[in-house]
Amino acid sequence: MKAARLYSRHDLRVEEVPCPEPQAGEVLIRVRAVGICGSDVHYFQDGGIGSDKVTGPHELGHEFAGQIVALGAGVEGPPLGTPVAVEPAINCGHCEFCLAGHPNLCPHILFVSMPPTRGSLREFIAHPARLVFPLPDELSFADGAMLEPLGVALHSVNLAKLKPGDTVAVLGCGPIGLLILQVARLGGARRVYATDLVPERLAMAGRLGADGVCQANLADPVAWIEELTGGRGVDVVFEAAWAAETVAQAVAIARPGGRVIVAGIPSLQDTLTFPASTARRKGLTLKLVRRMKHTYPRAMALVQQGLVDVRSLITHRFPLAEAAAAFALVEARADGVIKALVEM
Amino acid sequence: MKAARLYSRHDLRVEEVPCPEPQAGEVLIRVRAVGICGSDVHYFQDGGIGSDKVTGPHELGHEFAGQIVALGAGVEGPPLGTPVAVEPAINCGHCEFCLAGHPNLCPHILFVSMPPTRGSLREFIAHPARLVFPLPDELSFADGAMLEPLGVALHSVNLAKLKPGDTVAVLGCGPIGLLILQVARLGGARRVYATDLVPERLAMAGRLGADGVCQANLADPVAWIEELTGGRGVDVVFEAAWAAETVAQAVAIARPGGRVIVAGIPSLQDTLTFPASTARRKGLTLKLVRRMKHTYPRAMALVQQGLVDVRSLITHRFPLAEAAAAFALVEARADGVIKALVEM
Amino acid sequence: MKAARLYSRHDLRVEEVPCPEPQAGEVLIRVRAVGICGSDVHYFQDGGIGSDKVTGPHELGHEFAGQIVALGAGVEGPPLGTPVAVEPAINCGHCEFCLAGHPNLCPHILFVSMPPTRGSLREFIAHPARLVFPLPDELSFADGAMLEPLGVALHSVNLAKLKPGDTVAVLGCGPIGLLILQVARLGGARRVYATDLVPERLAMAGRLGADGVCQANLADPVAWIEELTGGRGVDVVFEAAWAAETVAQAVAIARPGGRVIVAGIPSLQDTLTFPASTARRKGLTLKLVRRMKHTYPRAMALVQQGLVDVRSLITHRFPLAEAAAAFALVEARADGVIKALVEM
Amino acid sequence: MKAARLYSRHDLRVEEVPCPEPQAGEVLIRVRAVGICGSDVHYFQDGGIGSDKVTGPHELGHEFAGQIVALGAGVEGPPLGTPVAVEPAINCGHCEFCLAGHPNLCPHILFVSMPPTRGSLREFIAHPARLVFPLPDELSFADGAMLEPLGVALHSVNLAKLKPGDTVAVLGCGPIGLLILQVARLGGARRVYATDLVPERLAMAGRLGADGVCQANLADPVAWIEELTGGRGVDVVFEAAWAAETVAQAVAIARPGGRVIVAGIPSLQDTLTFPASTARRKGLTLKLVRRMKHTYPRAMALVQQGLVDVRSLITHRFPLAEAAAAFALVEARADGVIKALVEM
Repeated sequence: MKAARLYSRHDLRVEEVPCPEPQAGEVLIRVRAVGICGSDVHYFQDGGIGSDKVTGPHELGHEFAGQIVALGAGVEGPPLGTPVAVEPAINCGHCEFCLAGHPNLCPHILFVSMPPTRGSLREFIAHPARLVFPLPDELSFADGAMLEPLGVALHSVNLAKLKPGDTVAVLGCGPIGLLILQVARLGGARRVYATDLVPERLAMAGRLGADGVCQANLADPVAWIEELTGGRGVDVVFEAAWAAETVAQAVAIARPGGRVIVAGIPSLQDTLTFPASTARRKGLTLKLVRRMKHTYPRAMALVQQGLVDVRSLITHRFPLAEAAAAFALVEARADGVIKALVEM
Repeated sequence: MKAARLYSRHDLRVEEVPCPEPQAGEVLIRVRAVGICGSDVHYFQDGGIGSDKVTGPHELGHEFAGQIVALGAGVEGPPLGTPVAVEPAINCGHCEFCLAGHPNLCPHILFVSMPPTRGSLREFIAHPARLVFPLPDELSFADGAMLEPLGVALHSVNLAKLKPGDTVAVLGCGPIGLLILQVARLGGARRVYATDLVPERLAMAGRLGADGVCQANLADPVAWIEELTGGRGVDVVFEAAWAAETVAQAVAIARPGGRVIVAGIPSLQDTLTFPASTARRKGLTLKLVRRMKHTYPRAMALVQQGLVDVRSLITHRFPLAEAAAAFALVEARADGVIKALVEM
Repeated sequence: MKAARLYSRHDLRVEEVPCPEPQAGEVLIRVRAVGICGSDVHYFQDGGIGSDKVTGPHELGHEFAGQIVALGAGVEGPPLGTPVAVEPAINCGHCEFCLAGHPNLCPHILFVSMPPTRGSLREFIAHPARLVFPLPDELSFADGAMLEPLGVALHSVNLAKLKPGDTVAVLGCGPIGLLILQVARLGGARRVYATDLVPERLAMAGRLGADGVCQANLADPVAWIEELTGGRGVDVVFEAAWAAETVAQAVAIARPGGRVIVAGIPSLQDTLTFPASTARRKGLTLKLVRRMKHTYPRAMALVQQGLVDVRSLITHRFPLAEAAAAFALVEARADGVIKALVEM
Repeated sequence: MKAARLYSRHDLRVEEVPCPEPQAGEVLIRVRAVGICGSDVHYFQDGGIGSDKVTGPHELGHEFAGQIVALGAGVEGPPLGTPVAVEPAINCGHCEFCLAGHPNLCPHILFVSMPPTRGSLREFIAHPARLVFPLPDELSFADGAMLEPLGVALHSVNLAKLKPGDTVAVLGCGPIGLLILQVARLGGARRVYATDLVPERLAMAGRLGADGVCQANLADPVAWIEELTGGRGVDVVFEAAWAAETVAQAVAIARPGGRVIVAGIPSLQDTLTFPASTARRKGLTLKLVRRMKHTYPRAMALVQQGLVDVRSLITHRFPLAEAAAAFALVEARADGVIKALVEM
């Protein structure tokens, strides 16, 4: 089968590799759509994320959907041919955190695409049967690949304990930010304000329901929110950019007693830094988002019913042979890219 | 001024009474719209609610809006002429529950229309200035009167800790049920099922976003929900009918670990009864709704932004002189009435 | 091996039965101590609980500890001879509720001693290895058997979201009530009041830290709490008696905004009934306790460190041959019995 | 009357000033005991905290108790002579945050001792009657002064949502840390580990119930907790030191899904900094403590019942004339000082 493999920074090659066999408890999936995530691009760009280095040829890609083509021993379904979305985090199922319903906190987790676990940018992948979710007819493979970032957005909004009528800011309008924006709106936020550096992303935020947008390199987001809210600040801030300054901005624009949900993914060396006295005087709560839990069925239903728009976020599509071009595009943030997809 | 006064059951007379003076801390309001609530009709129908009896001429009506016409001593605003909605529950502001942010639990509360506190079905009413909320331009007096039941709906949904993607049933499609339906939808419920006995109310539920409706005297709501959910039940049930059987239905159709929010108002003698073993095996949580807290600004914003439709619920309007006809209509549940309004 | 088997009401026979073999994933346990639970006595007394009937010889007993004597296929530990406590609820591990961390809500649960699943009143039992917990040196087998009711008490107090300084009432001082009393005290309750009908149980409640006790057939618990709290009521009420009147008492003595935790186990036909208007005016929350989740490690640590006293509750001990006498004693509530234990 | 007034850094003078008159709604209090808080010492040491500068003679001191000696207009109690503890934060009572039960988040707050509001290191102070709490007989004035830091500890533990059986670390064993330690123990923590730099404080932590202590300049607290918990970390970390490194330590030793409660008070310029990736991978929640709310009655009851020991923390007592010596002692952290009190 063909696979896109990263050898070192910027060196991604599509080549022939052996096809995997499904082990006991696994299914074999023919991969049909893979989204390129910002964390994938970190690897492409730097050859790793912090101390996690790519040391040999390695497949990236963890936002994916495909079709069941074989069942391992002891697996009774889904039927061959079934289109499925895939939860890429393989939790142990037995530790304190798994048993308590927090598979995202499992310390033994293996995550598709995080070395040494191979990613999904290849024609076939074997995966635990318990982690695949049959797609309803209304969802394409591309939609299925989008359920992973949508799950992160759902989990982020759950952590915020959003109530109908809350006011919200979303800092960063990449795919995660734009999905959070929609879920927050769906969750009853009565005002959602969005910031980013890229005009196309802000335009998309507006189309998806933002009540106001701010291009953060042209205007000060803190002053903007202060004016919009009469100095009060917003109930909930979602940080979805992970620029050095966005966490500090989040602290500045949250209201007293507000919640700051940090969904951006720092690279390993980064420190989270913000003015302590401001945060203390407001009595803020900060929550850091660790992936998601129990979100696939909900995410699927929301897309199926048209309550969340994932398709508008897919701005570019590439065949597997051109995977390197997909990565280069996302790295450059060129051509108004929001989500680039590799389809097979 | 004129006032509609209940003398005894079904004996409501519109007559001249002295106009009140605003005391220190109060404003005088010219009443412009008053909604007829189910609890008002209890008084009209029975001459009281349980042990609370009407013993002399008494004004009903607590869902109201009007205009500021005079300010009592020490009150600096709002300016004369300002249209306002009114929080009818006068909490003490000093007890343990008020200080902790739960004015709805204040044991010293005085509630407009609950004897001996006079209601708002009269041309003028004096009320604490701290409990009036200026209406934005987009809201009519009728909209303003609807903020009280909308507040109950918001509080009910807050108590449910609804999450985007939850499934919901609303038992009872009177004004409260139809507002809960909308707020639950707004709060991200991905399925909302509604029951009632009256076809017009179910039709309205459908127009306001219900995914399915059940006329509970023609089909069994429990079997209906079981089929719709494959036997699982729904995440949250709102009881908004207070028929003897709806609480038991709520227990039957909630999923394991589900939440039952009892928003219906029992008369004083009623007992709440349901199968204990079913409720225990599911590990259910029941919450009883006590009015609302801190909801006026949110309610106002949601109507202003068109996120909640209160106008469709107002099916009938009467002048003050015909207040008795308004009560008789609601008592009879005739002519597809949902909310009847007295306008002055 | 020997087993105590219930044939029909009051007909419990100790007789020889075949010894089980551990299946794949199971361990074989030599049972050493079994507590007699109130639900066991329901079966002994009535031949069933509601629609659950004993239709042939059936072993009761689900509060138990013992020693590992054999390992089934694929099981690598604990070592033979290890003393263990046992979680008697065998959840499926795969359903929505198990994955979300709520094994107690699993609809596919098998519960040791609930027909057709055989109980632990026998010399050997095979049980899933994942549900046994090695006992630390400080804990006896009798202590180990008490971890099951202690787990219910821990889960009950967790549901109450108790805060240091809360005031608490415990209605019913059987084993569950006396354990809740201790855990609530441990959780920072600054006043714990207890009621029961049996003087010995109230005396034990006093020794275990109750600030006041009330014999409910001699004095009115509602008036008693009202006087103690100046009419305010207590923050949290634990119902642990399941007499018809205790739930209504709980509603009467909870403060506005209070929480009522129903830990008592109703028989299947029972309805839960209380004055609706009182509960609504107070805006109460009721939670029904469904067994426990994730409590064994915590329960074990609390006993090991001397923070909870389980031994004082064990008032009577019987050999297996006298199991019927143990049941008769608990049924009669005679001789100051709190917890009777069968030891082997 | 006499007052201790700070003129500039280290220049604290006891001198005659006019006695205040109680205004409407106020009581006049004869001050009897004032605790020296770390934030007071910031002013003494630096002449301010960050941008808050002492620009003229200014009284410090906000942990205080005294006796009612006069009532302002409209105030009916408590009777003259009543000993009282005092809530030093004067909230507005009308803003969104006050009404919602969060007086600690009131943006209009005036805080006794924070310029320009005068502190309590003087013989008489006028204060709103609604913010004084009569002391029960069992509590001395010194106990009463300790209710302020105890309130911060109670609020900190409330924010942590501690459950019986949780494991806890307290970083910093000053008065706040030692009170948190006790309240966490009272709240059912089954292990409480404590760190500090000062041996006397660690010895006190041990006497007050710590299961283990670590002198953080002699051993690495992170490695210590890792070893004690087998690498898992603790459920809750209370940061009560505000050294640059303690927040990072807190992030390092919290378990996945754990909670970090930041009770330490940074000076205005400080930034809060910690490794973002670690915090994200664990999905941590951080909460910053803003003073307290609704804690006086609870704090009083806990001391009255002997459940919290505040007296052991009072290591030094000074007359008003020697206030400067009290400050110098606390600044130097000399002579095993934990809490120094000025008594009049």
